[in-house]
Order: sequence, then structure tokens, then C-alpha cells
Amino acid sequence: MARQININCDMAEGFGAYDIGNDVALLKIISSANVACGFHAGDPTVMHRFVMQAKEDGVSIGAHPGFDDLQGFGRRRIYMKPDELEYMCAYQIGALQAIACYAGLKVTHVKAHGALGNMAMEDESYAMALARASKTVDPNLIFLAHYGSQLHRAGERLGLRVAREGYADRQYADDGNLASRAMPGTVFRDAETAVRQVIRMIGEGEVVSRNGKVVKVEVDSICVHGDEPTAPVVAAAVRRALEGAGCTILPLDKMNLAR
Amino acid sequence: MARQININCDMAEGFGAYDIGNDVALLKIISSANVACGFHAGDPTVMHRFVMQAKEDGVSIGAHPGFDDLQGFGRRRIYMKPDELEYMCAYQIGALQAIACYAGLKVTHVKAHGALGNMAMEDESYAMALARASKTVDPNLIFLAHYGSQLHRAGERLGLRVAREGYADRQYADDGNLASRAMPGTVFRDAETAVRQVIRMIGEGEVVSRNGKVVKVEVDSICVHGDEPTAPVVAAAVRRALEGAGCTILPLDKMNLAR
Amino acid sequence: MARQININCDMAEGFGAYDIGNDVALLKIISSANVACGFHAGDPTVMHRFVMQAKEDGVSIGAHPGFDDLQGFGRRRIYMKPDELEYMCAYQIGALQAIACYAGLKVTHVKAHGALGNMAMEDESYAMALARASKTVDPNLIFLAHYGSQLHRAGERLGLRVAREGYADRQYADDGNLASRAMPGTVFRDAETAVRQVIRMIGEGEVVSRNGKVVKVEVDSICVHGDEPTAPVVAAAVRRALEGAGCTILPLDKMNLAR
Amino acid sequence: MARQININCDMAEGFGAYDIGNDVALLKIISSANVACGFHAGDPTVMHRFVMQAKEDGVSIGAHPGFDDLQGFGRRRIYMKPDELEYMCAYQIGALQAIACYAGLKVTHVKAHGALGNMAMEDESYAMALARASKTVDPNLIFLAHYGSQLHRAGERLGLRVAREGYADRQYADDGNLASRAMPGTVFRDAETAVRQVIRMIGEGEVVSRNGKVVKVEVDSICVHGDEPTAPVVAAAVRRALEGAGCTILPLDKMNLAR
Repeated sequence: MARQININCDMAEGFGAYDIGNDVALLKIISSANVACGFHAGDPTVMHRFVMQAKEDGVSIGAHPGFDDLQGFGRRRIYMKPDELEYMCAYQIGALQAIACYAGLKVTHVKAHGALGNMAMEDESYAMALARASKTVDPNLIFLAHYGSQLHRAGERLGLRVAREGYADRQYADDGNLASRAMPGTVFRDAETAVRQVIRMIGEGEVVSRNGKVVKVEVDSICVHGDEPTAPVVAAAVRRALEGAGCTILPLDKMNLAR
Repeated sequence: MARQININCDMAEGFGAYDIGNDVALLKIISSANVACGFHAGDPTVMHRFVMQAKEDGVSIGAHPGFDDLQGFGRRRIYMKPDELEYMCAYQIGALQAIACYAGLKVTHVKAHGALGNMAMEDESYAMALARASKTVDPNLIFLAHYGSQLHRAGERLGLRVAREGYADRQYADDGNLASRAMPGTVFRDAETAVRQVIRMIGEGEVVSRNGKVVKVEVDSICVHGDEPTAPVVAAAVRRALEGAGCTILPLDKMNLAR
Repeated sequence: MARQININCDMAEGFGAYDIGNDVALLKIISSANVACGFHAGDPTVMHRFVMQAKEDGVSIGAHPGFDDLQGFGRRRIYMKPDELEYMCAYQIGALQAIACYAGLKVTHVKAHGALGNMAMEDESYAMALARASKTVDPNLIFLAHYGSQLHRAGERLGLRVAREGYADRQYADDGNLASRAMPGTVFRDAETAVRQVIRMIGEGEVVSRNGKVVKVEVDSICVHGDEPTAPVVAAAVRRALEGAGCTILPLDKMNLAR
Repeated sequence: MARQININCDMAEGFGAYDIGNDVALLKIISSANVACGFHAGDPTVMHRFVMQAKEDGVSIGAHPGFDDLQGFGRRRIYMKPDELEYMCAYQIGALQAIACYAGLKVTHVKAHGALGNMAMEDESYAMALARASKTVDPNLIFLAHYGSQLHRAGERLGLRVAREGYADRQYADDGNLASRAMPGTVFRDAETAVRQVIRMIGEGEVVSRNGKVVKVEVDSICVHGDEPTAPVVAAAVRRALEGAGCTILPLDKMNLAR
């Protein structure tokens, strides 16, 4: 199973006086960070602090655009027009690019957050809006997209460098998308379940859905969540398991990704 | 008096369903636009619409960062820490850079809005924060700074390309800064007064302050305001007067500006 | 057709430096105002100015809670949990109650705005959330609810005083709800069409839907929109037509409404 | 030293997914809570959860209006016009009154938060704006005001029931106001220093300022801070010391406060 794999995580999700997640610990474990850009979480100061730390830890950074909904942490579906959604995403990517200059880092990938990501997995017009925003701002941005989703297809259609993504700690639905967070048991907080899902995903190219269906998945990157208290333990277990299986963990910008 | 001069104006200050100012008319008159970046005014959709129009009219664009205060339209002083203010400005510059990609435009200057601009005219730590943000995000950004202000000095100290600015339609205080908008009569809404101030500024390098003091000013760019209903009339009169006096009106990025 | 009828309109929808609608003209025509409460539009200063004016014009006021989405003017669907939506509405009602103290006015009704209203027309859990918020904050609040909608039912179920509402200037769908604003022709901007719809609604208790279906409606209050430039003309024509048909136009709090 | 005393604390300062402070522990110690109202912190859901808990613990609640500045946690000075500030405060008081209905609680006091409170301590126009907001919304609201400050005077001038306040865990300036949080050592995080200051305040009616000056203070209520991790320990020590000195700890609405 000797291969390259990326581990990504949503980060920099504090805001002002508020802190959340354990970025310091996670930055030692993961290889790419999805950085909140001030809409669903994050503010310019939080973003600045984070990129400086990511630089030090050799973690590549990506823009993590979300809905403008701090109270909902970007997890509420908001029905915007696709073009308004597109410019909102472009705005957030640019904001992070500017803050990244402080660390001398380039923003190398884009991944949608929360409800925005979920909607874009399922809806072609939203997926295309995200892909266009990414391509317009920087055609070299890697498009981190859930395997088999509308996002995945949109990235390929626009000729973006797509990194196909799978989840370590979220249960799948039968269609290969994520089962809703609103249902009990869809967020895995124990390392063992997450590791088992990852190993099968990497080793056999499949996951078992909430209803027991075997779903095909091919992934370049494994997502672990950062806002659960259990995140560092789960992430570390996933990393160890991947390395134990012979994988090399790389930042997204160091991987060979076809366009 | 044959010389090059720029005319700049604050624009793209609508938000969502709200419109303000007369951008379409003003874009035919001015040569550089200070584009609201979503904090004191503007949103990604408004910004997008504006840069597309600016491209068509051959107007150069600059980021116009302001305080995160839509209710106050960025005109209330907010006492932030200089580093937080700096990252907030960098964020806004980057956001506009991304949106400008849609028009194939580059953001070529930076000018602070409203209370942020006024505070930075007077306060060295705020002026330096703005200059550092500008330099960090793009060292080639032109720093549009009120002549003789702390902003002007900060831009020079950091080796930025500075465009020295004077106001057509705002009364000056004795120290060369602007007299507060809160005092009656400090915003000129008639074209004649504005033209008289501009012609003396350009021709003799001086303005007469609120108290009748003659203050030295050397300017590369004339600011006219966009949010007054009288703006297009005032701006057009200023442009005609400048051209009548032999000046060539240029976008900031076409001017010879020393570093 | 001698009967009492109310005319209501969404108002106070400016924000900070932004103005929208023609509240001054409309306050002379309508009898009850739905006052934006600072989430989808409005701010405390706008609300204050409005209640002072409403007092003078003898117009009764109601809270007009909306989603926290100024960019979308409350017209984007946001999927919140019903209890979060409920507290958000209670919050807005209370905020207006406090501001109304400046005018010595009581808030006498509640009507949901935009997408929130549309969602609550169709969804029982949202309709009940709104009704509970209204009842908890003040059980005497009149619940202004689209005739036949989930809102209407929720108000009756909780024993609220319900004012049944019909629209003058919006096209109906076959199920009696409003046809989506996203479809062309669903907002009537000419007075004649609006008057025709109102007269049939009042006289015969029915409207003709987008697809030509005759739908039963019984109404206590007619809604006219305030944010279209044509609003005062349409509203005035509707009022004249109603008065010409023998109706007495009353504020909601002066009407006989069963609980 | 047998007397009645109140202990108040800023609370309900979470927002959406973010939590801060230790409300559960503090509610067992203090007797009155200053409830964030959604501007500097808090949201309708957080407010709801808090009032339900406060009801259970027998803690009286007050509105804690702050600047609309979540990133700055209401600790940045924002220069608003006094009338805009007044309506903003009235809005927040009303919002909490509505949410308090869920617990069957009345809002019985008002206390300004952070920078708003600090500015109103020093500035008569801001202090009067706050006092007018309080009086307009409910003339029976207790006005919790730093002893000797402009707030204290404004409350007395408008005939409000004033509760004079002193701080347990903040250092005083020579003028009797609080020394700025920006200076090191002005927030006491050890219980001993706080207890010493409180005992001298209660026993001898004085505090020792940052510069060693003895300043007169007469207080009805002691403020302890809630957002420091040390808060419950400090608050509990202060309560024990007060009770040990023979004081009875009461909610503000149970105290005899002259108008």
C-alpha cells in the first residue's frame, strides 16, 4: 500500500476572544490546514496567528470559505444565488491569500466548509460556483473535493487540480456523501472507528455507509475534524495507522495531482 | 501648470439591497476608484459588479479598507490594537484582489476609509499599521496618503510608492488634516468652492484652512466624495477645471510616483 | 361589502447610511406597519425614527422578525433549528418593544419577514416556533398570518389572536402560498393588477393563482410591499379601491379579531 | 459591618459554537448576572439557556448592553453619537426582556459592558444616554453604576434606582474609575488581592489606587469578572469574605435602593 496521502483538517476557527479546537496539537499531526476565512469562523487576527504557526510546522494552507453565519458556525444551509456564493468564496480566498503573505506562505488549496461544502457536494450549480471562484482567483489552486461528489465533477470539468477527499471521522450515506451531522452517531469520536474507516478506504477503496452499503471511494486526502475535543487523539491515530500501512503523509502542494 | 494629476473617489459603497452614490456617473469622470471592501460598506457582489464596470471605464482600482462598522458607514472611530487593525486591512486588500481577478484588473493602490483614514492621518501607530499591511500584501501597491499626514510619513518610511492626496470638497484644519465632518460646512457640496480649493492647491500648492490659515499642500491626487448627491456635478467641475488648467488626468498606476 | 380591513406594509428597512422604500409616503396610506428589527434590515436608530413617525400618523406597529442576513435582505432561506429560530424571533420582538417605548407605542402584532415568513407558511415546526415566540413574549400580540398557511394554523392552535392576511401585489401559487419571487411576474408593480386581486379577494373570498386556479382566501389584512419604487402608488390605489368598496381601513389593534 | 451587599458578574458571553467563562459555577456564587445581549457577546440561544439557569439558581438578571463588536468582545472604544448609542442600548435591554419571558423572569437592572461602560463612566453624554435608555424602557430598572462615575451621577439625575458598584478584581485609577485593562496588573487573578480590596471597600469605604492614592467608594454591589479562568475561585473567596464579615448577599431586586 506504499503511496502518498494527505491529512487535512479544518482550523483557525476561533473568533476574537473565543477559542475552539486545538490547533497547536493538530498542526503537529496533519499535513494541510483548511483555514477559516472570517465568515463562518476566524477573524484576521486569528488567521494571522494561524498562518505563522502553520509555516513553522510545515503545514500547507488552504482557504476554507463558509457561509457568513458565525452563530451557526457555517453549518446552516443558506440558499444564496450561485453567483453571489461564487463571489463570496472568491472574497474569502483572497482575504486568506493576503494574510498568508505575513508568513511568506502561498494558499495552495480550497475546500468549502460545513453546509456550503455539503450543499456543493450535492448541487451542481453550487459546486460549479466554487470551482469557478477557485479557478478565477488562482488556476493553480488545488480543489479539495469529496470523492464522487458534484464538487469532484465540477473541479474536473474546469480543469482544476483536484484532490479527492475522504472522511475519517464522519459516517457516509449510501450515495457516497456524508450522512447528516443531525443524525446520531454520524460523527466518530473514537479513534478506532475512524482508523478502521480510513484503512479500508485506503486499502480497498471503499467505505461502509450508515445503512451498511459498500461505497467506492478513491482518495488523495483524509479529512479529520478539528473542533471535537477528541480531534488530536483521532487524528494522531489515523496518521499512525496510515504510516503503519506504508503511506507517506504529504502536504497537498507536494503531491502529484492530475489536472 | 502642465502636469499629471489623478482624481480619486470612494465607490462601491452599496450593500445587498442597498444602493448609495452614483458610481456609473462618477466612473466616467474620475480616474481611480477606492473600492469598499465589505467592512464599512460593499459586499462581494457589489465589489464584483463594480470592478467589471471600472474595467470598462478604464478606471484604476484601489482597496479602501474601513472599520467593520456598516451601521456607522466606517465613520465612527474604533480603537483597535494596531496589529489587529493591520491584519484587518490586509484581509480587505486581499479580498478585493481576488474579486478584481474577475475583471482581469490588478489592485494598484490602497487608501483608508473614513474614521480609519482620519485616525491614521494623525496617529503614527495606525499609519504604520496601514503601511505595513499594504507593503506585506504587495510592495508595489501605491499608498494614497493625505499630504503631510502620518500616513504620508509612514508610506515614505517603509519605501512605498506614495501618492500625495488633497481634498476637493472637504475643509482643512490648521494642521493640514481634514476638519471634522461633524462641524457644519466642512463638506463642500457646491462645485465652485471645491474648484477654487483644487485650483489653488494645484496652482499654488496651498489651501486655506477653516480658520483662514494658509497651509502648504503638494498633491498627486485629488479626492472627491461619492456619497453626496452632488458628487457627480462637483467631480465633473473639478475635472474640467483641472483640464482647463492644463493638467492631464491619469489613473494612479499610470503616474510617475517616486518611491 | 361593508367591513373592516387592515392594510399592512413592511417598513423601516433602512440601515445606517442606507435608505430604502418610502416610509413617509406609505405611513399616510397604510394602517399597520411591520417594523424591521435589525436582523434582515433596520437598526436601532432607524427603528426609533420610524416609531416616532408611526405614532404621529396613527399607524399601529408590529415586529417583523427576519433572518440575520442583511446582505440577502432576509430573502434567503436559512435552515436554523426551530428553537434557535424561536429565540431569534423573540429577541427581535423585544428589541422593538423597547424602541417603541420612545413613542409611547405598544407593539401590537408580529409578522415574519421574507424567507422566514415563506418557510413558516409551509413548515409546521417553523410556524409553531414563531407562534410560541409571539405568545411567550406577549400573549396579546396579534399574529399576522397568511390565510390558510401553517402560520395561520399555528396561531390558531396556540390560541393567538390571528389576523388572516392576503397579498395585494404578489402572485399566488396553487396551494394558496405565494409564488416565488424568483419567478418573473410574481411581484405586481402596477396598481391595476393589485387592485383587481384585492377586490376579488375581499369581495369574493378568492384569488386566481399563477396557473389560473381559483384559491379560497379570507382576509382581515391586505399586505402591500414597501421596497418597490411603485409602492406608494400601488398602496394608495388599493386603499382607494377598498374604501370605494365600502371598507373601513383600521389598524390591527382596532379590529375585532377572534382568538 | 452587618449589611446587605450584592455580587454581580458579566455572564452569558458565549456565541454560537463558542463558549467562554464558567456560568454554571458562577451562578452558584453570585447574586445578580449581567447578561450579554447579542452585540459584544451572547446570542438569542445563549441568552435563553442562561436565563433558564439563572431562574433555577435564584440569580437576578440585568441587561448588559455593549458595543456591536463581537471581535473586540465589546472592549474597544467606538465613538457613536449619544442618541445612536442610546437606542442601541434600549434595543438590547428589550431583547433580553423578551428572552427573559421564557424563564418567567423580569430584567431588573442594567449595566453597561466593557468599553461602553468605561466611556460612560467618564463621559456625561454617554452616561446620560444609557440612563435615558434605561428609564425609557422601564423606569423601575436598577441602574448599576460605578461609584462616583458619570454613570452614577446620570442615574441620580434621572431619578433612577441606582446601585453603586465597586470592583473586586480590577485596579482603580486615582480618579476612582478603573485603571485600563491595557496596563499590566490591573486585572487581579488571585483571590487574596481581590478579597483585600473588597474588605477595605466594604469595611472602610475606600480603595487604594494604582498609584497608591486612597479613594473613597460606597458600594451596594461588588463586581467580579467571569471571563477569566480564575473567576469562580475569586468570586467564591469574595463571597466567603463578605459573609464572614457579616454581610448578607442579595440579588439587586431584593435590596433597598434609594431612588
